[in-house]
Amino acid sequence: MTVRFGLLGAGRIGKVHAKAVSADSNATLVAVADAMPAAAKSIADLYGCEVRSIEAILAAKDIDAVVICTPTDTHADLIEKFVKAGIAVFCEKPIDLSLARVKSCLEVVRKHKGTLMVGFNRRFDPHFRAVRAEIDKGTIGDVEMAVITSRDPGAPPVDYIKRSGGIFRDMTIHDFDMARFLLGEEISEVVATAAVLVDPAIGAAGDFDSVQVLLKTKSGKQAMISNSRRATYGYDQRIEVHGSKGAVSAENQRPVSIEVATGAGYTRPPLHDFFMTRYTEAYAAEIAQFIAALGGKGKAEPSGEDGLIALALADAAVLSVKEGRVVKMSEMI
Amino acid sequence: MTVRFGLLGAGRIGKVHAKAVSADSNATLVAVADAMPAAAKSIADLYGCEVRSIEAILAAKDIDAVVICTPTDTHADLIEKFVKAGIAVFCEKPIDLSLARVKSCLEVVRKHKGTLMVGFNRRFDPHFRAVRAEIDKGTIGDVEMAVITSRDPGAPPVDYIKRSGGIFRDMTIHDFDMARFLLGEEISEVVATAAVLVDPAIGAAGDFDSVQVLLKTKSGKQAMISNSRRATYGYDQRIEVHGSKGAVSAENQRPVSIEVATGAGYTRPPLHDFFMTRYTEAYAAEIAQFIAALGGKGKAEPSGEDGLIALALADAAVLSVKEGRVVKMSEMI
Amino acid sequence: MTVRFGLLGAGRIGKVHAKAVSADSNATLVAVADAMPAAAKSIADLYGCEVRSIEAILAAKDIDAVVICTPTDTHADLIEKFVKAGIAVFCEKPIDLSLARVKSCLEVVRKHKGTLMVGFNRRFDPHFRAVRAEIDKGTIGDVEMAVITSRDPGAPPVDYIKRSGGIFRDMTIHDFDMARFLLGEEISEVVATAAVLVDPAIGAAGDFDSVQVLLKTKSGKQAMISNSRRATYGYDQRIEVHGSKGAVSAENQRPVSIEVATGAGYTRPPLHDFFMTRYTEAYAAEIAQFIAALGGKGKAEPSGEDGLIALALADAAVLSVKEGRVVKMSEMI
Amino acid sequence: MTVRFGLLGAGRIGKVHAKAVSADSNATLVAVADAMPAAAKSIADLYGCEVRSIEAILAAKDIDAVVICTPTDTHADLIEKFVKAGIAVFCEKPIDLSLARVKSCLEVVRKHKGTLMVGFNRRFDPHFRAVRAEIDKGTIGDVEMAVITSRDPGAPPVDYIKRSGGIFRDMTIHDFDMARFLLGEEISEVVATAAVLVDPAIGAAGDFDSVQVLLKTKSGKQAMISNSRRATYGYDQRIEVHGSKGAVSAENQRPVSIEVATGAGYTRPPLHDFFMTRYTEAYAAEIAQFIAALGGKGKAEPSGEDGLIALALADAAVLSVKEGRVVKMSEMI
Repeated sequence: MTVRFGLLGAGRIGKVHAKAVSADSNATLVAVADAMPAAAKSIADLYGCEVRSIEAILAAKDIDAVVICTPTDTHADLIEKFVKAGIAVFCEKPIDLSLARVKSCLEVVRKHKGTLMVGFNRRFDPHFRAVRAEIDKGTIGDVEMAVITSRDPGAPPVDYIKRSGGIFRDMTIHDFDMARFLLGEEISEVVATAAVLVDPAIGAAGDFDSVQVLLKTKSGKQAMISNSRRATYGYDQRIEVHGSKGAVSAENQRPVSIEVATGAGYTRPPLHDFFMTRYTEAYAAEIAQFIAALGGKGKAEPSGEDGLIALALADAAVLSVKEGRVVKMSEMI
Repeated sequence: MTVRFGLLGAGRIGKVHAKAVSADSNATLVAVADAMPAAAKSIADLYGCEVRSIEAILAAKDIDAVVICTPTDTHADLIEKFVKAGIAVFCEKPIDLSLARVKSCLEVVRKHKGTLMVGFNRRFDPHFRAVRAEIDKGTIGDVEMAVITSRDPGAPPVDYIKRSGGIFRDMTIHDFDMARFLLGEEISEVVATAAVLVDPAIGAAGDFDSVQVLLKTKSGKQAMISNSRRATYGYDQRIEVHGSKGAVSAENQRPVSIEVATGAGYTRPPLHDFFMTRYTEAYAAEIAQFIAALGGKGKAEPSGEDGLIALALADAAVLSVKEGRVVKMSEMI
Repeated sequence: MTVRFGLLGAGRIGKVHAKAVSADSNATLVAVADAMPAAAKSIADLYGCEVRSIEAILAAKDIDAVVICTPTDTHADLIEKFVKAGIAVFCEKPIDLSLARVKSCLEVVRKHKGTLMVGFNRRFDPHFRAVRAEIDKGTIGDVEMAVITSRDPGAPPVDYIKRSGGIFRDMTIHDFDMARFLLGEEISEVVATAAVLVDPAIGAAGDFDSVQVLLKTKSGKQAMISNSRRATYGYDQRIEVHGSKGAVSAENQRPVSIEVATGAGYTRPPLHDFFMTRYTEAYAAEIAQFIAALGGKGKAEPSGEDGLIALALADAAVLSVKEGRVVKMSEMI
Repeated sequence: MTVRFGLLGAGRIGKVHAKAVSADSNATLVAVADAMPAAAKSIADLYGCEVRSIEAILAAKDIDAVVICTPTDTHADLIEKFVKAGIAVFCEKPIDLSLARVKSCLEVVRKHKGTLMVGFNRRFDPHFRAVRAEIDKGTIGDVEMAVITSRDPGAPPVDYIKRSGGIFRDMTIHDFDMARFLLGEEISEVVATAAVLVDPAIGAAGDFDSVQVLLKTKSGKQAMISNSRRATYGYDQRIEVHGSKGAVSAENQRPVSIEVATGAGYTRPPLHDFFMTRYTEAYAAEIAQFIAALGGKGKAEPSGEDGLIALALADAAVLSVKEGRVVKMSEMI
């Protein structure tokens, strides 16, 4: 079976998914839609698919699944429409910035027994997957503590920040999902500290650029997250899990791994400077998993529920900073 | 000038300091006191010094300085006595487990213009010093965020735990001092999570064995600490500081640094498994600094005040866990 | 301009090149030929090209270039035929196992002003290229000494060994080319030692499985090569260049870069275990360079001459082992 | 039993040994001799021993062992004199620059059943010892190939070079001994290449500054050595052994092991820049082994015979470069 795809949104991340769909021998990219005709045409030309309107894709008989890469505020509506039409949905994170809206959307998905997978790409990074595999094999015994470091090479434009829902919902949300992926147990408590150190304009927009989070599960497993909107040395993405029998970690990735030795010391090049080069394999693998799941192999996970919980954790962090206290997840969902 | 030393306490750490004093060409070990005569004699034999009672050392004319390595609950009293006698004091951490008692003790030190240095040995580790030196040189710009990982190879006996003041005052206290050393600004907020994962007996004793702490300064600098009483791979001691222009870190140390490659992968040996082998150089360097300070070179730091603040941070962490909230340091001191 | 390709040979390496040609937007794979029709059909199906005979590809009007991946003993004849037909040739190494035959073949290429590029893929590895780029930038000053380590995960079948021309011509030939790439000056002296340690059957076939080579240029630049047909830990491929101002090296590559810490130590996974996964990017990049060169950008290098010199170095090593002496390249070509 | 030591030669290396002897609880430094009275006095003051003439030490009743750190051309004579006097000898390498003289000296040692240990300190480096220990444990199976990299931070003065016996006898001699230590089988063949790249004055003095050596044993085990008199990044000392079941290596050592990350990349500090800081532990351990051997624990090894063979390997390398051929060790001894 070949899964026939429609792509909604032909921007930066849309291009990544278009490539992944086209390269998968079990899928074909049938159509692409974008508010900017030129963007849609560019993808259509590259991969030999049609340009259509979203409505046309929704009404089409030759579409089995869509990838939603449109602006965040359209996600929930589109998910509902396509699920109602019996079309499987892969949606970029987040489903919505409002927890209530996410809940109502997931209700629609459930009611229509729709398929919804959310784009937490990092779970599919081969290095992070290998960390999870070691945990599953029991190499480190019971998981006890995780440390997640996630720093962006540079802050996005303040205009983006304003629409982003804030650093916890926009950036840390990936780390919340990663913490759940690593701890293997639901998080029950969240506490965070936050500051503006990179750019005062971010503070003026009501957001933070440097944050720390502590997470804890009912049984006492813990995780901590360090986020910054700035890292001169590249896209800093590390995880580390400590358990009763040992620890496992995944180091940073760089495009080339040479080392230069001079009187100034031993120098390796900076890291990847962009999430798309850092997570190339992860983006391909998540779409492959979605396609495989539609073909009956494995699950379309992370699910909408995973998207909901990650957002709730972000909301809890926001509340924690506001009120200077540990927030229980039972307060949130 | 040669500084003439008395050593109070001939236990494990007393031996370390006896060796450091003896090896320093600007100092001489004159006498040692211990409740266990055999322990004192063992050091006396090794370094050619006298065995005396604490009272005799206090009354002696040939003692310029003492190193206090006796049980914690004797520290404050001894500091006061020796300071009053005009003898310089190097005291193992902590000064006392009660913040009030530390304050009253420091009051006595101040009143008598005494010299008091506290044994936060990690500041003298050559690798951690090099991290601090890079910060001072401006290599990483303004300090923004620090990550401190500190895990013991194994938990101490529960009897020790019961007298220790708890993990925050016994173990994390070193990391609190390290956070201050790295951030270079006083901490204003503390929040922590804590769990019992290693040994239920620790929980039964009212303590935790796995804790996380977030720290924040007034200007927004932040640090996070991960502590565990267990690490199968050795004594895990890492620091990392992220700043506006870069980052600097100090990795773990191991006794031998070979690597074995087989079909099972590439393996390096475990870390040091004991704080005394890990921090050999640091213990020597802190005593050298104390001696140098008595000779007019540099300061006798970390000071009693440093000991006080580290303890207050520990108390704040205890309170934070108890009340599930961010604790402001202005509540503590 | 789109370069229209014919692929001669649909075996393991043929598939790699088929993929590279198909993925390049400046090229199209028109036809594939193979003595085994099923192999050719498999590639034809995958990339949507025709199955043809070699003769048909030679006579075709719609072929600008061929990639030769047929057995070694057919290379020289095919190069001559296609060059005479005005078709550009990319040929897998080696051109031939006989130096005389390579020379006569290159004579034909020269006479017909043909384009011939030889598949020394390692020059296109991004890490090795980065090493060369540092040299070119002057980072390490004048190149003085290189160390090349190249060990295969396991020995090929003895049948292959018998037809291979021996380890120096089959395996070390890549390292000879790499030494030239790194030293940037022609090699004038060769000396080698060789032994059979992995498999006595290799010795019975008149070959070696564990060899060392020293190389020297006229100005005194030197390189050394360590080769083994066995490495339990994976495909061991390292280079290191030492110069007057510093050194630069490229480490081994592994599929996942996690690290597991337990009481047994810190373990990273084994290396890639196969040249095709290790050099995926290099294979794509060399074909891209060939295509670019046909379009006027850069040169079709490594050239036939590079193939000739690498083979002459291999012959010199064989002679050195036989006669127990340093062999001058002036004796060889 | 306490071994009573005389030290012959109070130069740079004499100081290192004086410290090692003094720090060993099973030994005492009784006397020091040096042609320069001030040098001898400096050591005498530091360690509380007497200044004596060599003759007085030879005639003394309170000397059990001597450490010979005088100029090379005095070694053989001193060894003979002290061995005849029944005093155990630890001698810095080399015994002499003439193979014939070494042989006659060892004959005297044998005749008088003297104890002679030669200062190949690297065998006592904890990292290199750990490599050997892994080999002994069988971790890597049968040893097949070794790679030894040894580069000095800078060339010694040409005056020193002239008296040194040349790079193979002065510098590579350590690597020859290390190769024997690692291969565990006598070397039967030697071949080398050599050049002058660092300083033309070294060439004018008839020596080389950049050399490569291949070694081979009867059973086919092989080793290769890369030496340079220059390394901007510090004292480059690495070993690597490849065997039938795996490989083991020891990396370079540096005084501090921090890492700085900026836009320019990830930088670790340079290596130790001096053999005395790099091999501090090795120098202490070799003297400890000598003392232990005199007390009946273990052997006084490396022996005079080890010194002889290493020199013969150096002579073979010199001959190989001169005649452009593989030299068999059966030609040398």
